Amino acid sequence: MSNTKVLPLLEPEASEASGAVVPCCPPLTERPFTAEEAETAARMFKALGDPVRLRLFSAVASHEGGEACVCDISDVGVSQPTVSHHLKKLKDAGLLTSERRGTWVYYRVEPSVLAAMGKLLATAPAGA
Amino acid sequence: MSNTKVLPLLEPEASEASGAVVPCCPPLTERPFTAEEAETAARMFKALGDPVRLRLFSAVASHEGGEACVCDISDVGVSQPTVSHHLKKLKDAGLLTSERRGTWVYYRVEPSVLAAMGKLLATAPAGA
Repeated sequence: MSNTKVLPLLEPEASEASGAVVPCCPPLTERPFTAEEAETAARMFKALGDPVRLRLFSAVASHEGGEACVCDISDVGVSQPTVSHHLKKLKDAGLLTSERRGTWVYYRVEPSVLAAMGKLLATAPAGA
Repeated sequence: MSNTKVLPLLEPEASEASGAVVPCCPPLTERPFTAEEAETAARMFKALGDPVRLRLFSAVASHEGGEACVCDISDVGVSQPTVSHHLKKLKDAGLLTSERRGTWVYYRVEPSVLAAMGKLLATAPAGA
């Protein structure tokens, strides 16, 4: 059973229609964010604003094949329930998806999410 | 008088020696972050994890010349003391620098900080 859900950083309608990644927000340097854009993007930044969550996210993102079992990424110095709690927060923010296969739950970072986050922080090209 | 200070996202010694930008951390997808790297990067993400702070940051980052006076960016629906409080948080996280010139304090986003943040979220090139 898949727990995959719509990622809040993307615009689901446009993504579904075209299959392309449509980030929620322009680059931070392009124009002041609207209140709605700021709500969406701040949720993602807040989820990464904890050292343990950031280590877990990095462990999943850098794992072979772009996905990791809880058993692969629990080496961050906190208890298993705390790991599960933080993974849930990352899922709730739309940064990870998960899927149960047999005994284990596997976590995956959507490449489209990384692309959307990277776009937020893109700087304007020289001369623009 | 300048309030410019060392930006925690960069490694000050290397930056001073070479003048080049040395981000604190590898891309999130490269390998699991160490505890120290996660502490540094999480501080920055946490600072951006509030909608009002994100709007203020975006307002400064997108303002003409890359800097803005408080008088330019207070249109975010909160009181002036709250604006000042959030700008201080962004400064403490090393995301903004400030300088008083005459009556006003001007805020600036360091391009090197945006570059370091963008590198964190860079995805590995195809085939890597």
